[in-house]
Amino acid sequence: MNYEKYFSTHAKNMKKSAIRELLKLTSKPDVISFAGGLPAPDLFPVEEIRQVTDEVMRTEGEKALQYGPTEGNPGLRDELLKLMKKEGIELDLDQLFVITSSQQGLDLTAKIFVDPGDVIMTGKPTYVGAIQAFNSYGADMHPVDLDEDGMNAELLDTEIERLRGLGKNVKFIYTVPDFQNPSGITMSVKRRKEIIAVAEKYDLLIIEDSPYRQLRFEGEPQTPLIALNSERVLAFYTFSKILLPGFRVGWMAGPKDLIQKAIVAKQSVDLCAPPFNQVILREFIKKGLLEKQIDMIIDAYREKRDFMIKLFHEHMPKLDGLKWTEPEGGLFLWFTLPEYMDTTEMFKEAAEEKKVAYVMGSAFDPEGKERNTMRINFSYASKEQIEEGVKRLSKLIASKAK
Amino acid sequence: MNYEKYFSTHAKNMKKSAIRELLKLTSKPDVISFAGGLPAPDLFPVEEIRQVTDEVMRTEGEKALQYGPTEGNPGLRDELLKLMKKEGIELDLDQLFVITSSQQGLDLTAKIFVDPGDVIMTGKPTYVGAIQAFNSYGADMHPVDLDEDGMNAELLDTEIERLRGLGKNVKFIYTVPDFQNPSGITMSVKRRKEIIAVAEKYDLLIIEDSPYRQLRFEGEPQTPLIALNSERVLAFYTFSKILLPGFRVGWMAGPKDLIQKAIVAKQSVDLCAPPFNQVILREFIKKGLLEKQIDMIIDAYREKRDFMIKLFHEHMPKLDGLKWTEPEGGLFLWFTLPEYMDTTEMFKEAAEEKKVAYVMGSAFDPEGKERNTMRINFSYASKEQIEEGVKRLSKLIASKAK
Repeated sequence: MNYEKYFSTHAKNMKKSAIRELLKLTSKPDVISFAGGLPAPDLFPVEEIRQVTDEVMRTEGEKALQYGPTEGNPGLRDELLKLMKKEGIELDLDQLFVITSSQQGLDLTAKIFVDPGDVIMTGKPTYVGAIQAFNSYGADMHPVDLDEDGMNAELLDTEIERLRGLGKNVKFIYTVPDFQNPSGITMSVKRRKEIIAVAEKYDLLIIEDSPYRQLRFEGEPQTPLIALNSERVLAFYTFSKILLPGFRVGWMAGPKDLIQKAIVAKQSVDLCAPPFNQVILREFIKKGLLEKQIDMIIDAYREKRDFMIKLFHEHMPKLDGLKWTEPEGGLFLWFTLPEYMDTTEMFKEAAEEKKVAYVMGSAFDPEGKERNTMRINFSYASKEQIEEGVKRLSKLIASKAK
Repeated sequence: MNYEKYFSTHAKNMKKSAIRELLKLTSKPDVISFAGGLPAPDLFPVEEIRQVTDEVMRTEGEKALQYGPTEGNPGLRDELLKLMKKEGIELDLDQLFVITSSQQGLDLTAKIFVDPGDVIMTGKPTYVGAIQAFNSYGADMHPVDLDEDGMNAELLDTEIERLRGLGKNVKFIYTVPDFQNPSGITMSVKRRKEIIAVAEKYDLLIIEDSPYRQLRFEGEPQTPLIALNSERVLAFYTFSKILLPGFRVGWMAGPKDLIQKAIVAKQSVDLCAPPFNQVILREFIKKGLLEKQIDMIIDAYREKRDFMIKLFHEHMPKLDGLKWTEPEGGLFLWFTLPEYMDTTEMFKEAAEEKKVAYVMGSAFDPEGKERNTMRINFSYASKEQIEEGVKRLSKLIASKAK
C-alpha cells in the first residue's frame, strides 16, 4: 500500500536525513567517532544516581511513579530557579517549566510561533536538530554568518530588512550563544546587546538555546540574552550535557505569557516530563551533586580539548585556508578546510577506509550549501582514540591537499 | 508586551482549557475525586522498580544514562514484540518503536497526517487528550455516536459520505476500542470488522489507541483492529495504566512505512524516549514482573469496580433517563443523566459544596455539546472514598431531579 497521500504537507518533506544515514557508518566499532555530540559516559555519576534513586523510591516512590503536573515537579522547578539565579537570571515560578529534553523546547517553540512560511533567522552554521524541528513546521530559515563574536548583527539587520521588503513574516532569531553547536563560538556581551537591538528594531523574539553554557573551561561567562532582556527572550536549558542525556529533561524560561502558552502546547504533546526522573534530579541537585558533577566534567573536557588541539597542531598539514576554532568550553571544534575540499564527499572515505568520523558542515546549514567545514567533538572519545583519530583525520586531509 | 501577534494560528486557538481550570478544584484534599484517569498509586510496584533500577545501574549504568536510538532500546522493543504477539499481533522489528507516552502517539499521528482542515472521525464521546492533540494541528474532528458495541459503523459511513460530498479530506478514524476513555465501552469484533470495512470503502487509515486493553477483568478479549488489518491500522499502547505513568513510555505499532515516518517525526520532537526508563522497563518485563503486576491490578480494579457499582445501585435515585455503563475492564464508568441535567453547570456545586468530583461529558466531545453525561473513575480512590463519594454524588443528583 502506498501511504504517501495520507501524509501531511510537512511529513512529505520529512525525509530520513541523508546525513543521519551516513552517520550510521560511525557506529561501527573500529571507527573512531568525533561525530556525535555525546557526553563521555565514563563521567556519568552512575553510583550517585543509583543512590539518589534508591532513596527517592524508599521515601516517595508512589509519587515518583504517578502522573505529575505539566509544568513539572514543583521542587525541581524551585531548584532550577536557583540555578538560573546563579547565571544572573531572575525569574518567577510562572516563568519556568520543565520540558522533555531541550529538543522538545525547539518543537514547542515552533509549535507556538511558526505558521508555514514564517521566517526564522539562524546562525550559519546552526544546530542540526533545530533545522529539523523548525522544518517540520514549514519554517523558512535564513542563516546569517557567524564571526568570532557570534552571529553577525549587521548582516542580520540587513537580511531582516531585505526579507521584510519581500513581505516575509520574520518571527524570531534563533541562537545558541554559548559554545555554539557546531562552531564552538561564544557570542560576546557586546554582540548580544547588538542582536537584542536588532530584535527590538524589528519587534522580534529571540530563542536562546543554551545546552553548553555551564561547560566553561576558562574565561569570563557572557551574560545570557534572557538576563539582558526579559521581554523578548525565551531560553532553554538541558541536563543532557551538564549531567546526563538519558533522563530527557530540560527546562524553558521566559516571559510569563510565552511560558504559559508553551505549557498549554506541552500538555497536548506529552502531558508532562517523566515525574520519576524529575524527582531524582531534584534530590540530586539538592544534595549539591550537580555542582560537583559540572566541576568534574569541566576539568575532564578541558583536558580532552587541550589534548586534541595540541595533537591537531602537531599532525594537521599546514594548508592555506585550513583553520579551526579553539573554544573556551562546550563539546566541539569547528574546522574550515581549504575551499576546494568537500567534507560531505570525503565522508565515506573517512568513515569506511580511514575509520574516523566527523559531521560534515552541510548538516548545520539550513540551505545545505556548506562544503568545506566539519564539526569535531572532543568530549566522547577516549584520549587513546583522540590521539589515533587526530592522526587518521590529519592524514586524510593531507591526502586531499592540492 | 502583547505577544498575541507572534503566535501561530494553532497556538492562538490553544486556550487554557476551562475544564482543566475547573478540574483544579478537584485537587483540594477534602474533595473525593472520581475525575482523573489516574492509576491507584498504592498498587505501584515501588519496591520492584527500586530493585530493578538498582541492578540496572550496577550493571549497565553508563548505557542507561546516555542518549539512545530514536526507535528505542533494542531489548525493550524485543520484549514489546513478544507482548504484542500475546495479543495476537504479529510484527517485525521495524513495525514497532518506543514513544514518550501514548499522548506523544497522538501528537506524532497528527503531525504526520494532519494538514489544517483535514477531517478526523472520532467517537462521541472520545478521549480529551486526543481532542487537544488533534486540535493543535488544526484538525476538523467529526464525532460519531457510540452504542454498546462501540462506534456506530453505519453512522460513521453516512457521515464520511456526507463530508466527502462537501469536498472534505477525511484522513483517519480515531478509536479507543478497549474500555474506551471515557465511556468504558469495548468495541465488539463484529463492529471492528465493520469499521475496517468502512475504512477500506473510503480508503482511510485507522488509529487504534489502546491504553486499557490489558486491564480486562472478565469476558473475552476482542481482537485488536491491527490484528484484523495490518495495512490500515496504526496502534499505540502505554505503560501508564498497566504499570505506572511516571516513566512516560509507550509504544507505537503499524505498517512499516508509517512507523518509519513516525520515527523521523519523533527525532525532531525529542530525539528519543528516556533510555534510563526504557532499560528499567526492559528488565522489569524480562523478569516477568509486568505480567504479575497486571494480574494484581486487574484483581484490585475489578474489586473497586464491583464495589462502586454496588453502591451506585444502592444510592442513586431511580430516575428516568439515568443510567451508567458497567464495563468489563479499564478505569471508567460513564453516566448518562436525565436530559434536563447539565454536568458542566453542576460541577462547581459538586466540587466546592458537595466535595465530590467527576469529569463533565462536554470535555469528551470535540464539539463541546454534551450536557448530561459524566465520567467516573474507579481506579484511583480508596474504598472508603468510593463509599463516601458515591453517597455524595447520588445525593447531588437526587437533589437535581424534577
